[in-house]
Amino acid sequence: MGESSGKGFQPTAILKVEVLNTGTELLLGNVVNTHAAYFGRALFPLGLRLARQTAVPDGAPIRDAFIEAFPRCDVLLVTGGLGPTTDDVTRELAAELLGRRLVEDDEILRAIQERCARRGFAFQERMRRQTMVPEGATVLPNAHGTAPGLYLPPFETPAARTPHLFLLPGPPRELKPVFEGHVLPRLRDLMRDAVVAECRVYRCVGIGESLVESRIGLRLSEIAGLEVGYCARPNEVDLRLIGASSVLDEVEPLVLAELGEFIISRNEESLESVVVAKLRAQRRSLAIAESCTGGLLANRITDVPGASEVFGAGWVTYANEMKTAELGVDAALIAGHGAVSEPVARQMAEGARERAGADFGLATTGIAGPGGGTGEKPVGTVFLALAERGRPTLVWREFFPTDRGTFKDLATQAALSALRKRLDLPEALR
Amino acid sequence: MGESSGKGFQPTAILKVEVLNTGTELLLGNVVNTHAAYFGRALFPLGLRLARQTAVPDGAPIRDAFIEAFPRCDVLLVTGGLGPTTDDVTRELAAELLGRRLVEDDEILRAIQERCARRGFAFQERMRRQTMVPEGATVLPNAHGTAPGLYLPPFETPAARTPHLFLLPGPPRELKPVFEGHVLPRLRDLMRDAVVAECRVYRCVGIGESLVESRIGLRLSEIAGLEVGYCARPNEVDLRLIGASSVLDEVEPLVLAELGEFIISRNEESLESVVVAKLRAQRRSLAIAESCTGGLLANRITDVPGASEVFGAGWVTYANEMKTAELGVDAALIAGHGAVSEPVARQMAEGARERAGADFGLATTGIAGPGGGTGEKPVGTVFLALAERGRPTLVWREFFPTDRGTFKDLATQAALSALRKRLDLPEALR
Repeated sequence: MGESSGKGFQPTAILKVEVLNTGTELLLGNVVNTHAAYFGRALFPLGLRLARQTAVPDGAPIRDAFIEAFPRCDVLLVTGGLGPTTDDVTRELAAELLGRRLVEDDEILRAIQERCARRGFAFQERMRRQTMVPEGATVLPNAHGTAPGLYLPPFETPAARTPHLFLLPGPPRELKPVFEGHVLPRLRDLMRDAVVAECRVYRCVGIGESLVESRIGLRLSEIAGLEVGYCARPNEVDLRLIGASSVLDEVEPLVLAELGEFIISRNEESLESVVVAKLRAQRRSLAIAESCTGGLLANRITDVPGASEVFGAGWVTYANEMKTAELGVDAALIAGHGAVSEPVARQMAEGARERAGADFGLATTGIAGPGGGTGEKPVGTVFLALAERGRPTLVWREFFPTDRGTFKDLATQAALSALRKRLDLPEALR
Repeated sequence: MGESSGKGFQPTAILKVEVLNTGTELLLGNVVNTHAAYFGRALFPLGLRLARQTAVPDGAPIRDAFIEAFPRCDVLLVTGGLGPTTDDVTRELAAELLGRRLVEDDEILRAIQERCARRGFAFQERMRRQTMVPEGATVLPNAHGTAPGLYLPPFETPAARTPHLFLLPGPPRELKPVFEGHVLPRLRDLMRDAVVAECRVYRCVGIGESLVESRIGLRLSEIAGLEVGYCARPNEVDLRLIGASSVLDEVEPLVLAELGEFIISRNEESLESVVVAKLRAQRRSLAIAESCTGGLLANRITDVPGASEVFGAGWVTYANEMKTAELGVDAALIAGHGAVSEPVARQMAEGARERAGADFGLATTGIAGPGGGTGEKPVGTVFLALAERGRPTLVWREFFPTDRGTFKDLATQAALSALRKRLDLPEALR
């Protein structure tokens, strides 16, 4: 996951932005912190990049982190600690460090009372803390929760000048509307004159990180004004190029010549999204039959808005009898070869395709583990099949000896990748 | 997401642990950082807690972060930047700051060459950087990738004493085995004499964070030696209590009296895991019929090891015709009431249950959005149904006006929660 090389492309950002996430739960591991990734993505189009992200537990560590970050950055985005419970102290700490009194805000009080009435909750006295606002702060309304965000413009403290300080609610579904509605517009104003760099992400499936770099890395690293990064995920590598659009345009033919066959998208689009788009464009439809992936394959497809145009039905036939009853898999084949086998995968894909009247049928049958492996078919074994109207069915075996969750990720990735390749065939070969 | 109150429970940790995540991709948002949550969970049983987590982009910021963290902590866990590509510089920076020469390690070289041979890859000269080890470092073998971890014990630099420094690979599937096999045992040795606190998490479904606190928060906050935290997720709140086991035992009756009906687990077990365990214990089985949740419900169930004992089949009937053909939903009902309706949900649940010969049938039909809403049934509307052998079918309507992904989360949470309640009925009422 190392990143960022190239002959010193200089980001054009004129504001140094940091994120401070507060919350003991983030450090105990009860919750995965998705805020940094969210902010990073949202800021990039403005020409802004996160210089640092810090997470600290509640209480005194927040104070330390404020004091350290204030002189280091121009914009500080703080999440969490604005809620109604007694462990929410961000608002009070900020007011204290900036030497500002907290005053009750009538409009917040009214909004909270209305919200409670609308949802049939009683107003609780403890919610009153959320109506307190440091003097000089701007309230950033929160339509999805009781705690509004707060904006404190830079001002001189005894110690130093403070950054643009944004205090934001922690839950993502509250944070995002407040950030997009009230923080981004302010940052956009601050950045109005900045030259914005472009970022292109070439997402590759079917090739490893080392090979991507050995094919193209050295040449890219010699190009002035280009920042190069790599990021690997299960059976997926992103090649990320950052620079002026003219530089990226110049480089693109080289990238396509070396990696074209592996590139599935150029805008961070997911594999499932690419597959659904291609099916829609070709007006073809898909049916899914899953055993070991247990619904994840259908779930990935239906995560894509508009999937209903191309996806009519999926079966999760976990039990052998259901493979026979619902998909027409020959019970004798299961008895003879086992449910995890080439002929069963084939009949699952074909059965799903036929029953749904679809153009394609995609099937998985394997051993996700932790139990169920044998010497001949250890945990991690999976057979995949792709049936297509009027063509022979493709069946192949893969081996992903890992944890149950990653196994499901890798098996669905392999299935979708095969379908994508098929959809990419020139029209004459379809 | 504010956290941690109570009358000053003092964590017994004697070592201050920090995490430093390196990688431009973390700050650009191409990747969600799951390392902090992983480390937090893994360290807790040892009596250790993360004091801080920091993410920085590659390059000079890593050096700054090293220099700041060294005097602040006793253990520093660093992730990323050990890979084969030119942007991976953590190893070199650490060696430079600690004033240690890098020397080639024959065993690493041999391991990499063997790994390449086994997987049919050519050894690439760029991989040789990964064989370099700072003098005095211990190599932490990595069976899942080419870059081993490195351990540098504390020693005196010109500036200060350095912490126990662990350099670890970034990809989670490489990081976890190295951490669990080679880092945790070393930390366990360091902590051998520490008094370890216990953490109990009461996971509640069907009650909001404010209500949890108003029912019980004040009383908990008055108990000495108890740390109280809350964490809210979509339709789920964790009440987290940390303290000596004797204190937690004393408090438990109060928690159960006030929140018992909402508590689904006491060990951070997921709702799907609780449901599967109850089905297994009662030897009852489940079939699933999904429309709007598109496979997520089956996917959650099949994420639980052993799900195959209780889950035989699921249908993702996205198209109306498939609801009729596969589940026996009356086409006239769909025409008259729409696919998103009470009678269609009912017939889906009953049809799935009957076809699978299962004890329960659970169904969802709704409008995930962003398109497809109407005035009467706006985006976010969902009908859920729970069929049970020998009992009337339960059908109810919910409204989750949010994004597509959260909608699927909330709808599956509601479905599983209803099933859990049914499974909790006393035997006489079943």
